[in-house]
Amino acid sequence: MALADRWLLPEGIKELLPPEARQAELMRRRLLDLYNTWGYDLVMPPLVEHLESLLTGTGHDLDLNTFKLTDRMSGHTLGVRADITPQVARIDAHRLRTQGPSRLCYCGSVLHTHPANMLASRNPLQIGAELYGHAGVESDAEVISLMLETLLSVGIQGSLTLDLGHVGVFRALTRRAGLSGEQRSAFIDLLQRKALPEITPFVAGLGLDAQLSAQLIQLARLNGTLACLDEALELFCDTPEAVAAIKYLQALAARLAQRHPGLGFYFDLSELRGYHYHTGVVFAAYTPAYGQALAKGGRYDEIGQDFGRARPATGFSADLNTLLDVAGLRAELESAVLAPDQQDASLQAKITELRNQGQRVIQALDNETLPAGCDRRLVLRNQEWVLAPL
Amino acid sequence: MALADRWLLPEGIKELLPPEARQAELMRRRLLDLYNTWGYDLVMPPLVEHLESLLTGTGHDLDLNTFKLTDRMSGHTLGVRADITPQVARIDAHRLRTQGPSRLCYCGSVLHTHPANMLASRNPLQIGAELYGHAGVESDAEVISLMLETLLSVGIQGSLTLDLGHVGVFRALTRRAGLSGEQRSAFIDLLQRKALPEITPFVAGLGLDAQLSAQLIQLARLNGTLACLDEALELFCDTPEAVAAIKYLQALAARLAQRHPGLGFYFDLSELRGYHYHTGVVFAAYTPAYGQALAKGGRYDEIGQDFGRARPATGFSADLNTLLDVAGLRAELESAVLAPDQQDASLQAKITELRNQGQRVIQALDNETLPAGCDRRLVLRNQEWVLAPL
Repeated sequence: MALADRWLLPEGIKELLPPEARQAELMRRRLLDLYNTWGYDLVMPPLVEHLESLLTGTGHDLDLNTFKLTDRMSGHTLGVRADITPQVARIDAHRLRTQGPSRLCYCGSVLHTHPANMLASRNPLQIGAELYGHAGVESDAEVISLMLETLLSVGIQGSLTLDLGHVGVFRALTRRAGLSGEQRSAFIDLLQRKALPEITPFVAGLGLDAQLSAQLIQLARLNGTLACLDEALELFCDTPEAVAAIKYLQALAARLAQRHPGLGFYFDLSELRGYHYHTGVVFAAYTPAYGQALAKGGRYDEIGQDFGRARPATGFSADLNTLLDVAGLRAELESAVLAPDQQDASLQAKITELRNQGQRVIQALDNETLPAGCDRRLVLRNQEWVLAPL
Repeated sequence: MALADRWLLPEGIKELLPPEARQAELMRRRLLDLYNTWGYDLVMPPLVEHLESLLTGTGHDLDLNTFKLTDRMSGHTLGVRADITPQVARIDAHRLRTQGPSRLCYCGSVLHTHPANMLASRNPLQIGAELYGHAGVESDAEVISLMLETLLSVGIQGSLTLDLGHVGVFRALTRRAGLSGEQRSAFIDLLQRKALPEITPFVAGLGLDAQLSAQLIQLARLNGTLACLDEALELFCDTPEAVAAIKYLQALAARLAQRHPGLGFYFDLSELRGYHYHTGVVFAAYTPAYGQALAKGGRYDEIGQDFGRARPATGFSADLNTLLDVAGLRAELESAVLAPDQQDASLQAKITELRNQGQRVIQALDNETLPAGCDRRLVLRNQEWVLAPL
């Protein structure tokens, strides 16, 4: 690498400079304080862990997306976390061991070998909250409400849409159809791509009876307003697990609609993001101003089991850098007071007083030109240091 | 790795759980706010960079201490940062390009292949501040004052000692003696270990004249109070660069003593920590309660040059986790209000009101036992939700 290129960051790696970095810091504080007032305790898991811990119960995608390191102290393979959720699940399962529900939140950098989408960086500043120890509509509703509150409190403008799905419908139908793991993966891929023209021949090739084939094909187009859930109830009435999942979504949506009157809903029964670890509801929040989900999450009851302690779990996460971009806050230079380069005690006392009030005071160095943002200065009048405009 | 061991962290890797994590967060805020009031702008450099960028101008030690990754997107070797200072120097040199002095601060996780000392973790939460574009006592004094203020503001009890050294004395004497790189490294090693019995034969073996030999041998024992600087001035009076360095230390100490009346000083002219990149003053703060430096730093004017833009630089850093341990704050569970599991609008409004006041309100899930920390609850009296003791 040439000397001249040493300042380039690796592709897809982002950093925050002034004044945006301060804004990110203030947003972080606002959100962690919000989670605190909802009873969510902060945890700070480490950047790296044993690879097995990071990937427990999470599936192949996260493995591919995780940078690996060799620990020269132990010879073990470590991973740089690509997601904080499995770390928090480990903490709930093994470090805290709370009996009742436990509410945890976090904010920290993660690293991805490849960007999650075309708008994403490879080093998101992940922020999120998780609720363990409760299986049911109440905890999913609480977590989704907190996710929506997150977006409102950082000033995301415009109408929000909540995408809601439930992996239980897909799971029940493919189980009934007796799909192999390979067939299921292929089907997931088709559904994720909403590749309707390919789905009909794929399902025909499975050799199932006519009704089940029709149900699998219908799954791909069951998305839209609340009405599609009624349609699904009728369509899958012979599959009790699918019915239960749909009724669960109805109850959850009713609860959320009561609490968030302006919220738009979009239901999608073939939304299978994170299918490998999600076990129930999956959800994501969108705004027209941004082409990807602003925040997303779901229920993943089995992750605790992989750590040796089964606990229901639901949670959401977002990239603070994305929230910062989409909120479109104007980062402004903070105004400052310029103090002269003198050591006398009364000047130092005045500077300390102003700083303790939260004011920004820059004490000039001998050769210092006017620092950016200074709009007032300290001057000596009648033997007292006072503020004067610059 | 057996299922039962998946929750173990790698050796030397630390994480923060409730309530300590919240305390670390509050300490982080207090310090970043302190730096903000001193005019230091926050930057958030990334976890990983091209290895060449991270190691530019920093010497072999940091290289050994840096975890390496292969970037599958580019084929380049990346490093996980083991120190944030070189990143901030890069930002000053290439991203900001301020003409006058620039003041920058940061707080973030770093990763070390080996712990820095027996008390340290391998993943410190590094916090610090850097001042670029000014060479002189004023900027070193400002940065050291801010370092001391850091320790005071997190409540470090007990008397503080400031260790002060200046690599210029060693540099001037070894240059006069014409030591090879290898000889200089060996001498640094002896001085760092304060291996007095080995130093005399080592110096004798260099074949220097009697006076220079005596000067090199004396260097190792020139530490203690301000008086040792007077002694050094006399001893090294024939070496102008050494004299300049000692006078610089005297001026700096005078300035700091005026500003921090209770501060203890310890001078050490053979303190060569970070010799490879430090170019002037080196400093560290100690308290009797902790066996290692609480915070440390120095002047490193040459680092900007390695990035293609020479800028004087001085700064300090500390591990927030160490400050948290040494400050010995008692982490207390925050008290909370328990709200019943009901959806009515007036209850939700009351909960929101309390949360907006910063109060912690946990809304019970259907099966939830009393969550930890709850000492009040919301009850309905005369059709109004009010707080009642639990």
